[in-house]
Amino acid sequence: MIKSINEECGIFGIYTNEISDYAVYSTYFALYSLQHRGQESCGIAANDRGVISIKKDVGLVSQVFNLENLNELGKASMAIGHVRYSTTGSLSQVNAQPLHIKHIKGPLVIAHNGNITNAAELRQKFEENGAIFYGTSDSEIIAYLIAANRLKLNSIEEAVKQSVKTLKGAFSLIIMSAQKLIAVRDLTGFKPLCIGRNEENGAIVFASESCALSAAQAKFVRDVQPGELITIENGEINCDKSMCSQKCHLCVFEYIYFARPDSIIENISVYDARIKLGKLLAQQNSVDADAVIGVPFSGLVAAKGFAIESKIPYCDGFVKNSYIGRSFIEPTKNLRENTIKIKLSVIESVVKNKRVIVVDDSIVRGTTMKRIVKMLKEAGAKEVHVRISSPEFKHPCYFGTDIDSQENLIACNMSRQEITEFIGANSLDYLTIENVKKIKLPESENFCNGCFSGVWPAETPKNISKNKFEQKLNIKNLKTN
Amino acid sequence: MIKSINEECGIFGIYTNEISDYAVYSTYFALYSLQHRGQESCGIAANDRGVISIKKDVGLVSQVFNLENLNELGKASMAIGHVRYSTTGSLSQVNAQPLHIKHIKGPLVIAHNGNITNAAELRQKFEENGAIFYGTSDSEIIAYLIAANRLKLNSIEEAVKQSVKTLKGAFSLIIMSAQKLIAVRDLTGFKPLCIGRNEENGAIVFASESCALSAAQAKFVRDVQPGELITIENGEINCDKSMCSQKCHLCVFEYIYFARPDSIIENISVYDARIKLGKLLAQQNSVDADAVIGVPFSGLVAAKGFAIESKIPYCDGFVKNSYIGRSFIEPTKNLRENTIKIKLSVIESVVKNKRVIVVDDSIVRGTTMKRIVKMLKEAGAKEVHVRISSPEFKHPCYFGTDIDSQENLIACNMSRQEITEFIGANSLDYLTIENVKKIKLPESENFCNGCFSGVWPAETPKNISKNKFEQKLNIKNLKTN
Amino acid sequence: MIKSINEECGIFGIYTNEISDYAVYSTYFALYSLQHRGQESCGIAANDRGVISIKKDVGLVSQVFNLENLNELGKASMAIGHVRYSTTGSLSQVNAQPLHIKHIKGPLVIAHNGNITNAAELRQKFEENGAIFYGTSDSEIIAYLIAANRLKLNSIEEAVKQSVKTLKGAFSLIIMSAQKLIAVRDLTGFKPLCIGRNEENGAIVFASESCALSAAQAKFVRDVQPGELITIENGEINCDKSMCSQKCHLCVFEYIYFARPDSIIENISVYDARIKLGKLLAQQNSVDADAVIGVPFSGLVAAKGFAIESKIPYCDGFVKNSYIGRSFIEPTKNLRENTIKIKLSVIESVVKNKRVIVVDDSIVRGTTMKRIVKMLKEAGAKEVHVRISSPEFKHPCYFGTDIDSQENLIACNMSRQEITEFIGANSLDYLTIENVKKIKLPESENFCNGCFSGVWPAETPKNISKNKFEQKLNIKNLKTN
Amino acid sequence: MIKSINEECGIFGIYTNEISDYAVYSTYFALYSLQHRGQESCGIAANDRGVISIKKDVGLVSQVFNLENLNELGKASMAIGHVRYSTTGSLSQVNAQPLHIKHIKGPLVIAHNGNITNAAELRQKFEENGAIFYGTSDSEIIAYLIAANRLKLNSIEEAVKQSVKTLKGAFSLIIMSAQKLIAVRDLTGFKPLCIGRNEENGAIVFASESCALSAAQAKFVRDVQPGELITIENGEINCDKSMCSQKCHLCVFEYIYFARPDSIIENISVYDARIKLGKLLAQQNSVDADAVIGVPFSGLVAAKGFAIESKIPYCDGFVKNSYIGRSFIEPTKNLRENTIKIKLSVIESVVKNKRVIVVDDSIVRGTTMKRIVKMLKEAGAKEVHVRISSPEFKHPCYFGTDIDSQENLIACNMSRQEITEFIGANSLDYLTIENVKKIKLPESENFCNGCFSGVWPAETPKNISKNKFEQKLNIKNLKTN
Repeated sequence: MIKSINEECGIFGIYTNEISDYAVYSTYFALYSLQHRGQESCGIAANDRGVISIKKDVGLVSQVFNLENLNELGKASMAIGHVRYSTTGSLSQVNAQPLHIKHIKGPLVIAHNGNITNAAELRQKFEENGAIFYGTSDSEIIAYLIAANRLKLNSIEEAVKQSVKTLKGAFSLIIMSAQKLIAVRDLTGFKPLCIGRNEENGAIVFASESCALSAAQAKFVRDVQPGELITIENGEINCDKSMCSQKCHLCVFEYIYFARPDSIIENISVYDARIKLGKLLAQQNSVDADAVIGVPFSGLVAAKGFAIESKIPYCDGFVKNSYIGRSFIEPTKNLRENTIKIKLSVIESVVKNKRVIVVDDSIVRGTTMKRIVKMLKEAGAKEVHVRISSPEFKHPCYFGTDIDSQENLIACNMSRQEITEFIGANSLDYLTIENVKKIKLPESENFCNGCFSGVWPAETPKNISKNKFEQKLNIKNLKTN
Repeated sequence: MIKSINEECGIFGIYTNEISDYAVYSTYFALYSLQHRGQESCGIAANDRGVISIKKDVGLVSQVFNLENLNELGKASMAIGHVRYSTTGSLSQVNAQPLHIKHIKGPLVIAHNGNITNAAELRQKFEENGAIFYGTSDSEIIAYLIAANRLKLNSIEEAVKQSVKTLKGAFSLIIMSAQKLIAVRDLTGFKPLCIGRNEENGAIVFASESCALSAAQAKFVRDVQPGELITIENGEINCDKSMCSQKCHLCVFEYIYFARPDSIIENISVYDARIKLGKLLAQQNSVDADAVIGVPFSGLVAAKGFAIESKIPYCDGFVKNSYIGRSFIEPTKNLRENTIKIKLSVIESVVKNKRVIVVDDSIVRGTTMKRIVKMLKEAGAKEVHVRISSPEFKHPCYFGTDIDSQENLIACNMSRQEITEFIGANSLDYLTIENVKKIKLPESENFCNGCFSGVWPAETPKNISKNKFEQKLNIKNLKTN
Repeated sequence: MIKSINEECGIFGIYTNEISDYAVYSTYFALYSLQHRGQESCGIAANDRGVISIKKDVGLVSQVFNLENLNELGKASMAIGHVRYSTTGSLSQVNAQPLHIKHIKGPLVIAHNGNITNAAELRQKFEENGAIFYGTSDSEIIAYLIAANRLKLNSIEEAVKQSVKTLKGAFSLIIMSAQKLIAVRDLTGFKPLCIGRNEENGAIVFASESCALSAAQAKFVRDVQPGELITIENGEINCDKSMCSQKCHLCVFEYIYFARPDSIIENISVYDARIKLGKLLAQQNSVDADAVIGVPFSGLVAAKGFAIESKIPYCDGFVKNSYIGRSFIEPTKNLRENTIKIKLSVIESVVKNKRVIVVDDSIVRGTTMKRIVKMLKEAGAKEVHVRISSPEFKHPCYFGTDIDSQENLIACNMSRQEITEFIGANSLDYLTIENVKKIKLPESENFCNGCFSGVWPAETPKNISKNKFEQKLNIKNLKTN
Repeated sequence: MIKSINEECGIFGIYTNEISDYAVYSTYFALYSLQHRGQESCGIAANDRGVISIKKDVGLVSQVFNLENLNELGKASMAIGHVRYSTTGSLSQVNAQPLHIKHIKGPLVIAHNGNITNAAELRQKFEENGAIFYGTSDSEIIAYLIAANRLKLNSIEEAVKQSVKTLKGAFSLIIMSAQKLIAVRDLTGFKPLCIGRNEENGAIVFASESCALSAAQAKFVRDVQPGELITIENGEINCDKSMCSQKCHLCVFEYIYFARPDSIIENISVYDARIKLGKLLAQQNSVDADAVIGVPFSGLVAAKGFAIESKIPYCDGFVKNSYIGRSFIEPTKNLRENTIKIKLSVIESVVKNKRVIVVDDSIVRGTTMKRIVKMLKEAGAKEVHVRISSPEFKHPCYFGTDIDSQENLIACNMSRQEITEFIGANSLDYLTIENVKKIKLPESENFCNGCFSGVWPAETPKNISKNKFEQKLNIKNLKTN
C-alpha cells in the first residue's frame, strides 16, 4: 500500500514584530498542517535577536517535538520549519532540515523544497575549492553558494538573488539570517509557496501551502511569484520581482495528489481541481456501473467528481486503518497476508454483486491496484472498472518528485491492455493529458507535466538519470585517497 | 473537537490448534482493527500450554506493543486482547485489561466490554467477605464471582454460567483459563460479540466487531447470541444456549457512531445503517440547499445517505488533520485559538456562498457544533442547516456508554429553538426515535435506545447516577480506619 | 560478575504534618539511598487526605521516576516507597511494590521486605475462600490477611497486629491507610527497620536502613524492635511492644554484604563491622604477602580491615566500570571475552610480581572468583591468596535472602582443597562462624546465620525447598479446569 | 559536588583485517572504558569498504547505543569512536563527534581531543574563502584544513601532515578515510594517545588511554609520540616521525585527575602516580591525625598514598551514591538541602571524635570543599585537615582543560589562610609544584603545568581569554547582514 510517489518537503517561515512564543508555536502547528508533504524528518529553527536555536530529527512532528524542546526553542521573533520526505536510511538525521550554518557574515538558516538539477556540478566546483559536505542534500550546496556570493555582495538578499541565478531546477526557499526573513521561488515556479499575513499583529508568514497559514492565524495574501524574492527586515517587506520573467509551471501533481484539498494554489482550489479531474474522467467513461468508489485517501475526491458527472452513486468502498503507522510490526512472512486487510478493508455491503468503478490518482508499478481489484472481487464485486485521475507515468522527474525508475513504471513496460489484465480489472482508463491540462483554462499548458508528456518547462540534466546522479555522489565514498 | 460519548472497550480472543506466533500476532492486528473502540489502554494475554504471559499498558496499540514485547509474549495456542477507553488519569494503568488473576483452580484471564449495574452491591458483598480490590473496574468483580462459583462447581464454564446469572447490566466477555477459551454475552445483548473461523487452520476467533476477524484471516460465522455461552476446549466448540431467552437489544449507538462501517452486526451492515439514517434524515428535511457535508469522521456516512436521498450534492466540507494525537502540545491560552483550525479545517471553495446542510451523528453539549457552524459561516456559507442522524440525548446510559451528565446535555436544558440559536444554525433537525428504529425492520423496537427514549430493555439501578456510584467507590479512600 | 545473593527489598515511609511536596520528594530521594537493596523495580505511593496516588514500574529509580510523574504523585502528607529485587522476568511489573489495594474499610498500601514461610498455606486458605491473586509476591497474602482481620477488629492497627501473629517468617512492613502510617517487624527481627525524625518539622520516617533517613533530613531515633508495631495517626505515635518477646536475630548478611557501609543497624556501624570481619580474617591468616586488595565493591571494606590487622599494605587492585548497567549490549559469543575486562579491570602495576591477598565477601558458585584469580595471574601476580569475609554457604535461606540452590553452591559440593584448586588460588580461607559472631559481642549468637550453620532462629518450612515452593505456585497455571 | 574541571574528550580507532562486527563492538566497549573522559555526547563511525555509517548523539554510551543502532552500524573493517564533554546546551547535538564529512576525495571521519589555539584565525580565513560551519567545535576547522591540503597534495596522510604544521595548540586526532586509519598527536604531546595490537587477529587500535585497549583484546604497544603520524592502509602500518622534534609535555592533570587509574601513560601507571602524589603530600604534612580519608572518587588514591607515607590509617570517610545521574530530579529550593547528603554521605563511625585528614585532587571555587568540611564536622570530626594533591589553580588553560574563569578560582582571590577559613578547615595544604613534577623523574619539567605555574610549553594566544574567544565566535550570530 506504500505509494511510490512522494513529495520532498513542506516549508514554513514566520516574521513577527515581537519576541514571544508565537513564532515557534505557529511553526509547530504549521508543520502539523504540512505533515502530508513529508513524514521522514522535521525541524524548527527559532531566531531570538540573532541567536538561533534549532531542533530537528528523524520522525513525525508529533514524535520530534515535545513540551521540553519547544520550550528550549523558546521565545523568538522569527522561525522557520520544515518537514521532509527522504529515501535514505534511518541513521540519516544529517539531512534533516532546516539547515543551520554559520558563514563569515553570521548565521544562515535554510528550508528547501525542490531539486537542484545542477547540484552535482556545483558541488564539484565547491569541493575543488576545498568545501566539505555533511550530507547529500541540495541545501548544503545552496548554503555554499549564498556564502560565496555574500563575500562579494553587500547584503544577504543580494547574495540569495545572485545564487538563484546560478541554481537550476526546482526550489522554493525560505531563508533566515540574523535579522531577515527571505522567501524565493525558482524562475519556473515548480514548487508552490504562498504568503500570508496575520491582520491582528502584522506577522508575515510563508508556507508551501495555504492550509498552513491558519496555524499563525494568518490570512492568505497571494502566491509568491516564480523568480520573486521577498525580504522582510525591520518589519518592512520588500518584493523584488526583477527575476520574474517566466510563466508559472507548477508541478501538476500538486493538484492530483500532493497538496491538501483545502489549499488554494495559483487561485485554484485543490479540492475543486480534483473534483474536476474526476468529472473529466467520467466524461471519458464508457461503462455503466452501480457504484463509484475511491481508493483512500488519494482517490477519494476524484471519485466524488466522477460520481457527480456520471450520476452513478458515490459510495465508500474501503475503510483505511488510520492507527497504523511507522511503529506497526510487520510479522514474519507466513502471517503477512493478514496485515494487508488490516490496513485496508473493503466494505462488503457496498460492493457485493455490484459493478464498481474504482478511482485512484495514479498507478506506479501496478501491484497495489492489482491487490485492490482482487480484494473487491473477493468481496463480491461483479465488475471492477479502474479509472485513474492522471495520465500514465512514462518519464522521470528531474524536479523533486520521487518517481520510480522507468524500469519499474508499469506504463513504460506494458500496453493499456496488458496493464488491464495484469491488475485483473474489467476495464481501465487514464485521464488524458489534454484533460489534465483543463484544471486551469486556457493556460493549462503552463503546468509541468513532464512525467506524463516527456516535455519539461526547464532544462533537464543530460545523460544523468536520477539514480546515476546519486550513485555519482555516493561513489566518492569508495575513492582511493 | 473531543467527543463526549465513548464506548468502553473492544475485545478479541483466539483459540488455535497449534503453538505458534499466530495467536499473538492475530490479536495484535485485531487490536489495530478495534482501536476505534478504545484508545486509552490496551493489552494482550497469551497462553502457552497453561502458562500465561501478559503485556498491557496505557497507550495506543502502536505505543504499547513493539517487537520486543510481542516476542516476549511469544508462541501460544490461545490469546485474548483488549482496547479500553477510560475517563481516569494517566497513572491508572491498574485498570488496563485483560485482567489476569490466579484463583484456586489456576489462572483466569478476562476481557470485558460493558457495564455491570449491580457492581456496587457485588463489590460490597465480596468486601464483606474479605476481598481486596486493585482497581475500580467491573472486571475484578466478575473475577471474584467466577472464582467463588468455581469453588462450588466442577468446571470453569459452569462457574462462568452461574456468574452470568448473578451479573446485571451489559457485558460481553472473553475468558481464558489454562485450557479453555470462553465467550459469553449478557442476556439482553447490549454489547456486540461475534464468532469467526479461519478455514485453513480451524482457529476460532471472537471479536467485538466483525472488522477484526480478518486479522486472523478468519471469516464471519455469526453473532454470539444474548445469553449464549461458548466454550472451546481441546479444539471442540460447545455452544450453551440455555440462558438465551431474550431478544437482542443491542445499543443503537453501535450503528450510529461506535462500530466501524465495514462491520456487520446482527446481519446489518453498519455502513448501510448509517446511509439509511442519512436517508431517513433527508426525508424529514424541509430546506433546500446547495451542498451536503458531514462532520469528520462521525457524520460522513450519514451525510452521504442524506445527499443520495435529497439529491443535493455531497461534498467534503472539512479536512481533519490525522497527524494530531495525544502528543500534540496545546499552547498557552492566547495561542489556543490557532489550534482549532489546525485540527479541523474548512474547504472554503466548497461552502463559499452556498447554502450548506451539515450532518453529524449527535450533539452533546453543543459547543463543538457551535464552533463548526461559526467556521462554516466564516468561510462564506450563506446558510448552515444542521442535521443530526440520531435523536436528542436526554437520558443517562447505565450500560456502558459514557454519556455526559444530564446537566451538561444541551437537549436536557434547551428547546430545539434555543439550541438552534445557541449553535448559530439556520435550522436544526434531529432524526426521530421512530426513524432510528427503522435501521432494522420490523423488529427495530429491539434496540436499546434508552438514552433517547428513557426506556431501557433491562432493569436500571435505582437512585444511583453513574457519577454517584463512582463517588461511592472513591469515598472509601477517605474512610476512617 | 553477577552476584547470586540478593536482598529482596528496601522500604521507606514518611508521615508529615503538612500537605506539601516534601513527603513524595523525600521518598524519592530515599529510594536512591536504598537502591542498593533492589534494582529490579520501584514505586512510591502518596496519600493526600486519604486519596492514594501511586507510581511503580520495573526499572531503577532514575528510570521509573521523572518530573512529570513526581508531579502527578503531587502534594501529600504521607508516602511509602519501595525498591525491589526479583528473579522474575521483565514483564512482571505486577509484582512491583508498594502494593495498593482497597478493602471494605478503604485503601491499604503495603511495602514489604522479607519472606513469609507459611505463604503457601495462607494463600491456599484464602483461595479456598474465593480469593484471587494478581502476582506471586507475599504482599498480596499479607493484604488479604489484614483485610480479613479488619472485618473482625475495630482498627487497622489491630488488624495488622492480628496478622503479624499469623504470619511466619521474615518481614519488615510499612503500611499506609487513609489516615495512618504503620510500621511493624517480625518477631525474630530478620530484616532491619529503623525510625527517624525530622526535628524541624516533626515528620516521622521509617526506613530499611539509617542511610535513607537524611533523604527527609531526619535523624536516626532507634531501630524498630522485633515484634514492635508503631502506629502514627493525627501526628501521634503509638508504639505497641506487646509482641516483643524475642531477641533480635538479624540476618548477618546485612553486615557482610547487603547494607550500605554508612548505615547503623542495632547500634553497630556496618562499616565498622566489615572492618572487623577483615581484621578477624587477617588473624586467621597464615601467609605472607605484598598487597591486600578487595573485589569491588563487596570486598573492599573487609580488605581494608585485613590490611590494618595484617600490616600488609592495602591497594586498589581493580577498576570496576560504573557506567555499565542494564542497557549494556552483550555481544555475540565470539566477542564476549572482551566484555569481562570492560566490566572489571586489573591495575597491573599494583599486582605485577606481587604476592597478593584478595578479599571478597563470599563465594557462591566459584566461577566469578576463578575468573578473578585468572585475571590477577595474567596481570603478573606471583601468588594469589583468596580470603572470604564470611563462612562457607552450605544451607538454603528461608527468610528472604536469594541464595543459590544447594546443587550450585560450591561449598556443598567440594572440599576446601578442591575449591582452592578450582579457583586456581594459592591458598583459600573463609572466616569461621565463631569469628562472624564476633561482630557483636557477646550476644552475637543472636544473628541469624543459618545459611552457614544450618541452624535458624525460627521455624523453617518442612519438606519444601524454596524452589519447590515456587514450582507449587506456578504449577497452578497448568491445572485443569 | 559537580567538578568544574573537565577533560574534553576520549577517542578510539580500530583497523582490522576483516569485515565483521568486531570493529564496531570493540569501539562500543572502548567507549565504556573511556566514558570518564566525557559524558555529554558520544558516537561511533564504521567503515565497510569505504561506505561510512555513523551514529552519535547527546547522552552516555548506555543511552545513545542500543542493539538496533549497533546492528545498523553493522559489519566493518574500521571504526572510530568518541566521547565528549561539552559546556554547551542540550540542543547542541551538532557538536557531537566523530565528525563525518565528504570532501572532494571522499569521506573523512575525525575524532578529536584537544584545543586548537589558532582556531579563530583559521576559521576566519576559511570563512573569507566561503566556508560554512555547522557547529562551534575545532574539528570542523581541522576538516577544512585537511580538505584544503588534500587538494594540493597526493594523499590524505600528506594532507593531515601539512595540517598538523598549521594547527597550533593541543590535539590528538584519529582520522578515517575510505581506506586508511590515521592517528596523530600534536608536537607538544598535550593529550595522551596510545597504540595497541590484538595479537590474535592483527588488529591495530588507537586509544586515548591504555585502559580502553582490552575492549578489542589488544595489548599496549606504546604511546604515539608527540608529532608522530601513523597511517594504516592495506594492513600495513607506517609511522612518520619526521615532525617529532619536541619532548612530550603531557597535561599533568591526566595523572592528577583525568585518566583512569589502570591506564599507563608515558610508561607511568596513573595509579602509581596518584599514590606518589599522596606520599609527597604526606611528606609536606605537619599535623597529626587519627584517620586519612579521600573525597570520592577523585581523592581516593592520593589519600591511600598519604596514609601509607604518614602511617595514619586510611579509612573510607564517605559513601557516594552511584545511582544518581543526569535524570536525577533536583527538587524545588526548600528541599535542595536534602539532596546533598543523598549524593555524598559521611560514614559517621569513621570520623566521630577523630582528627581527620581529608584528601582531594583540587580545589576550584572552594564551595564544594566547604560543604565537605561542614559535613565532616557535623558528623563529629574533631579536626578536619584538608590536603590537596595538586598545587593551587591560578592560571587559565589554553589547551583543552575546562578550568573555571580566573575570577572564580579561589586561589586567585584569596590567600592560603583566607581559603582555610573560607572552607572551615583546621589546616590546608596544597602539593607544591616541585613535588608535582616528581611524578616523573628527572624529566618532570616536561609536563605541562601551566594552570599552576603560568608557564606553558607552547605558544599561548594573545589578548584572548577563552571566554572572549567564545564570545567572538558567538557574536557573529548578531552580525548585521
